[in-house]
Amino acid sequence: MTTPTLHALDQAIRLTMTAPNRFSGHCDETYLNMVGPFGGMTAATLLNAALMHPDRLGDPVSLTVNFAGPVGLGDFEIEATPLRTNRSTQHWLLLLRQNDEVMTSATAFFGTRRETWSEQAAEPPAAPAVSELPRKERHERAWFRHYDMRFVSGAFQPDDANATPSHDSLLWVRDEPPRPLDFAALTAVGDIFAPRIFSRRQRFTPAGTVSMTHYFHATQEDLQRAGSDFLLGQAGVSRYHHNYADQIAHLWASDGTLLLTSTQVAYFKE
Amino acid sequence: MTTPTLHALDQAIRLTMTAPNRFSGHCDETYLNMVGPFGGMTAATLLNAALMHPDRLGDPVSLTVNFAGPVGLGDFEIEATPLRTNRSTQHWLLLLRQNDEVMTSATAFFGTRRETWSEQAAEPPAAPAVSELPRKERHERAWFRHYDMRFVSGAFQPDDANATPSHDSLLWVRDEPPRPLDFAALTAVGDIFAPRIFSRRQRFTPAGTVSMTHYFHATQEDLQRAGSDFLLGQAGVSRYHHNYADQIAHLWASDGTLLLTSTQVAYFKE
Repeated sequence: MTTPTLHALDQAIRLTMTAPNRFSGHCDETYLNMVGPFGGMTAATLLNAALMHPDRLGDPVSLTVNFAGPVGLGDFEIEATPLRTNRSTQHWLLLLRQNDEVMTSATAFFGTRRETWSEQAAEPPAAPAVSELPRKERHERAWFRHYDMRFVSGAFQPDDANATPSHDSLLWVRDEPPRPLDFAALTAVGDIFAPRIFSRRQRFTPAGTVSMTHYFHATQEDLQRAGSDFLLGQAGVSRYHHNYADQIAHLWASDGTLLLTSTQVAYFKE
Repeated sequence: MTTPTLHALDQAIRLTMTAPNRFSGHCDETYLNMVGPFGGMTAATLLNAALMHPDRLGDPVSLTVNFAGPVGLGDFEIEATPLRTNRSTQHWLLLLRQNDEVMTSATAFFGTRRETWSEQAAEPPAAPAVSELPRKERHERAWFRHYDMRFVSGAFQPDDANATPSHDSLLWVRDEPPRPLDFAALTAVGDIFAPRIFSRRQRFTPAGTVSMTHYFHATQEDLQRAGSDFLLGQAGVSRYHHNYADQIAHLWASDGTLLLTSTQVAYFKE
């Protein structure tokens, strides 16, 4: 007899409601990054508190996550407060604490979405098929092994003297092992891109996201259609200046549907 | 004898500290928009609470504002809480309430910035000189008269049968009367663009920003150099779908320095 096991992502974002608006979770080494866990997984965990909250209305439209301090291994608490619920929209405040200290703060906006006039302005850039690209093997951080990344351009290759400096990165990516896409998984993969300064300078510098904002274009139907296939991701930058640089990124389903617009601002040391 | 009068912007964002972390302000008709005041001014007012807070550390790097309900004419209260203060960074939670209801929520990230390697990837698009462009005269909303807007392209012209539908807008803009740029004024002007669906369809539909995020590339030196000159602003969109569309915008000083990357997601009815 085999026991069905949770996907690593579902394990990582798992929460237990302990009191009204209160959830407890646990951070282990599965998605560990440089300092604390992969930020995308922390973002997905915070969103999950609103997703599973009994008062939830509609689906996520926007999410902003502020990385205030490194989440440590062990238990954490999330306070998820619906600040305001309107007829078809809902505003959330989400605070992740360890030892009563705020490690991550977030706000989220949910809405019930109806069919409207639609148009996609940002078309996916041309990219070779996934099967034509090698999987990027990196073992420096635990979280890398949980994503299958196939770079078209802009990979961080500090050990390759011929690496091309680039503001932009373009890659195919999916959970490893594959897992059907949902709002939590899309939230996590939206943080897949290394700080832009890594691909631009092709050398390491202490760096990390301080604030990230996702806009979910994807409706439930878009997510179902995307399934567990690869997503195409592209990230660019506007300016690096005095310790901070922005990032603007998009994620498309393999059929070209834009699922996510994501921006973030990252610290860099020098 | 003449009494020096405050600029309308300084009047609008003026706050009085009433208790630790508590400020009171007042909304009048000066910057009134369709429903409540111009969102950029509400954003500037929220940021101002952190800017004038006695515990403030450093300068704004990011700001996210969630428009939960319409701010009404009259008094409001802002609760400004430094959620976490590190050695050189600070995370804020900002809540604007009227009658104990949250009308606007925001988070902000401040940092002390030092000189680093810098590079600007997003160069300003070509644009005619301000003097070659007519000022856009609009009188439908009170707040319009407090900005001098000179459109290069993408203006909303629902009464012009020959108006060109466009995802993008490009314009020169400054406070009217001119006022030296600071973080509050830059925050407000970052919301200058009409919902993208207006320029795309050139007809009115109920629409409004639900969440906006600013990344401040500008340091104090950048702001001083920008002075009270016009800024060049460009806004685009990625996808309109099921009641919501995003916007990605940039604001440059007249010398080409990128001051702000701003994104927002806006509701539209149909």
